[in-house]
Amino acid sequence: MRINYQDEQSFLENVFAAYDFTKEDSKLLADTLVDADLRGISSHGIQRLKWYLNMIKEHIIESKNQPIILKETPTSLLIDANQNMGQIASNLAMKKLIEKTKKSVILVAVIRNSNHFGTAGYYSRMAAEAGLIGISNTNTRPLVVPTNAKDAFLGSNAFAFTFPAEPHPFVFDGATSVVSGGKIQVLAKKGEQIPGEWAINGEREVVKDANVAEDILSAVAFTEKQPGGGVLTLGGNSEENSNYKGFGNSLVVEILTGILAQGSISADTNTGKHDFSQFFLTIDPSFFGDLDVLKGNVESMFDRIRNLDHTPGTQIMVPGDREYKRFDDNKVAGVAIDDTTAGQLDDIAKDLGLKAPKAI
Amino acid sequence: MRINYQDEQSFLENVFAAYDFTKEDSKLLADTLVDADLRGISSHGIQRLKWYLNMIKEHIIESKNQPIILKETPTSLLIDANQNMGQIASNLAMKKLIEKTKKSVILVAVIRNSNHFGTAGYYSRMAAEAGLIGISNTNTRPLVVPTNAKDAFLGSNAFAFTFPAEPHPFVFDGATSVVSGGKIQVLAKKGEQIPGEWAINGEREVVKDANVAEDILSAVAFTEKQPGGGVLTLGGNSEENSNYKGFGNSLVVEILTGILAQGSISADTNTGKHDFSQFFLTIDPSFFGDLDVLKGNVESMFDRIRNLDHTPGTQIMVPGDREYKRFDDNKVAGVAIDDTTAGQLDDIAKDLGLKAPKAI
Repeated sequence: MRINYQDEQSFLENVFAAYDFTKEDSKLLADTLVDADLRGISSHGIQRLKWYLNMIKEHIIESKNQPIILKETPTSLLIDANQNMGQIASNLAMKKLIEKTKKSVILVAVIRNSNHFGTAGYYSRMAAEAGLIGISNTNTRPLVVPTNAKDAFLGSNAFAFTFPAEPHPFVFDGATSVVSGGKIQVLAKKGEQIPGEWAINGEREVVKDANVAEDILSAVAFTEKQPGGGVLTLGGNSEENSNYKGFGNSLVVEILTGILAQGSISADTNTGKHDFSQFFLTIDPSFFGDLDVLKGNVESMFDRIRNLDHTPGTQIMVPGDREYKRFDDNKVAGVAIDDTTAGQLDDIAKDLGLKAPKAI
Repeated sequence: MRINYQDEQSFLENVFAAYDFTKEDSKLLADTLVDADLRGISSHGIQRLKWYLNMIKEHIIESKNQPIILKETPTSLLIDANQNMGQIASNLAMKKLIEKTKKSVILVAVIRNSNHFGTAGYYSRMAAEAGLIGISNTNTRPLVVPTNAKDAFLGSNAFAFTFPAEPHPFVFDGATSVVSGGKIQVLAKKGEQIPGEWAINGEREVVKDANVAEDILSAVAFTEKQPGGGVLTLGGNSEENSNYKGFGNSLVVEILTGILAQGSISADTNTGKHDFSQFFLTIDPSFFGDLDVLKGNVESMFDRIRNLDHTPGTQIMVPGDREYKRFDDNKVAGVAIDDTTAGQLDDIAKDLGLKAPKAI
C-alpha cells in the first residue's frame, strides 16, 4: 500500500512524542524516516519504527537524553550522543559544522555513544544544500567478512559524500560493503535469489538463497558467538577481483568512527555493547574557486557521463539521479509500505491511541 | 636483476640534477621512486624514469619551475604546481599541512597544474609518521569505464589513507578502480592472462588477454578519440555486484581533484591538456583522544583481524602489512628491476655520462 508522506510525518511525530522525545527531536526523527521513504530507501524508512521502539523499551535508546558537546574548536567537534538516537546528535553536529565552514574552510565532527542514525546521505545533503561538500560515516553491527576470513568483523559502514549541483546535488550514499544487510532482507521477504556475490557462509562459499543469507546475517549481527559467514566486501568473494580494496574502504570507516570516537568497533556491538560512532566532515569548495563555476564544471562532467555510449537496455546514472527522481515521484504517488510494516503500524497506533496512516 | 637502493638513489639524484631540477627536488624525486621500489610497487619506481624524462624533453614537465602558493589560511592551501612534477608541490603541501595540524586539527590542500606525483601513499605516510591521519588523492589519464558505459572517462584515481600504528602505520593506498593500469602492464610484459574482471573492450566484454587489454588502455589513455573499453570500476563488469559503488568512489576523487582545482578532469587529459590535480587532507587524532590509547585500540583491532579464522592457504593482511615487509626485505636483498628498465637505465646513463647502478 501507499501512504501520503505528510500523513506519515505527522503519525511518526506523534509516536516519537509519545515515547518521550522532545517535540523538536520527534519532528527530526520523523523527517529522517519520511525522507528515506520518499527517496525509495525503504530499508531506512518507517519499516524501522518497530525496531527503534523496541530499543527504546529496552533502554538501548534513551529518548529523554540530550547530546553533550565534549570539545569544540573553530574546526572540530567531539559530541557524546548520550545514548539517544544517532539522528539527534548527527543533526546537531552537521548544523554546527555548516555554520562554521564558511569561516574555517574545513571542519570535522566525531560522535560517540550513539545509536543508528538513519541514512548517511541525510546529513551530507544538509551540507550540499548549504553549498558545501559533506561527508558522513557510521559504523554498524558486525556483518562484513574481511578478505580471506570466514567470520564477520566489520560493519556495513556507511559512507555518504555530496557536492552542490543542479538540478540536484551529487549524492553518493551507501554501505561500503558490496550491499547493505537491508538489501538482502528485502530479497528474503520476497523469497528471491541473490543475483550477485553478496553473502557467504562459514566456509566462504557464496550463498544465493536470500533466506539462508538472512539467517546468517541475523546470527552474525545479534548474537555473541560468531557462527561464520556474512556480507562480502566490495569486490566480491575473490582476492583476484580486489576485494581487499573493499575491505580497506570498510576499515577506513571503522577507524574514523569507532576508533576516533573511542567507542565500540563494529565487531563488539553484538556482545552486550550497542554504541555506534559517527564521523562528519565539511569543506567549503568556494575557497578553491567561484561556487557557480565549480557547479557548472561538475554539472557538465555529469552530463557528459550520462550521455556516454552505453550497453543497450541500460542507463548511466550519476549518484543521486535515482533517489531524486523517486523523491519527486513519491511526493505525488505516496510512499510504498509493505504489509508487514502496515500491520506493525496498526499495532503501534492502537497501543498509543493514535490513528495509523491510511492507504491512498 | 637487483640493485642496491642507495646506488639507485644516488643515480636518480644525478639524473634529475642533469635535467635541471634543483638539488633538493632531485633528492625528493629520487626518494619517491626508490621508496616505491623498496615497497614492491615497481610500477611507480625507477621503471617510470624514461617516461618522466620524455615528458621533460617534451616540456610537459618544466623541471626548473617552482610551485606557487595561491591561497593559504590556517586550515587550507591552494597551490599551483607550475607544471613541474607532482611530487614537488605535493611534498610542499603535505609539509605545510603537517606543520599546522596540531593547531588546527584538520586541514585541506588542493594542487592544480600538476603532473604525476608517484604513489599516493608517500604523502599520507608523511602524515602518519607525524601522528596524523593523512589522505591523498590524484586524478590520472582516462582509463576507467563508468557503470553500463562503453567508453573510458574516469581516471584510475588513487586514494591513500593512513593512521598511526605500530609496528607500522595503517597504509591503504591504491587506485579506486578494480586495478591500476600498471597491474595490467605487468601481466602484459609477462604474456599472462588476467585472472579477474579487470578490463573490457568496446562492447563491454571482459578481456582476459593482458596484451589485448594493454593495447586498449594505451589507446584509451593517450589518444584523442575514445576507441572504447578500459579498466572496470571496483565491483567488476556487472551492476549486480554493485560496480556503481566503485564508480561512485572514482567520481568522488574526480570531484576532489580536477573539479576543486579547476584543472582538467581525467577525461580531458588525453586531448592535448596534461594537467593533473591533487588533494590532501590531514586530521589530528589526538583532538579526539590520547594518541597512545587510539594507537593501542587500532593495533588491537588489526591483530584481531589478522587472527580471524580464514580459508586454508590464505593469509589475512591489514593494508600496509605487505609493503612494510617488502620494504625491510628489499633494503637487504636490493630492488628488483626488469630487463627492459635495466636497458633504459644504461642508455640514460650513457647519454648523461653517468654510471648506471650495477647488479648486486
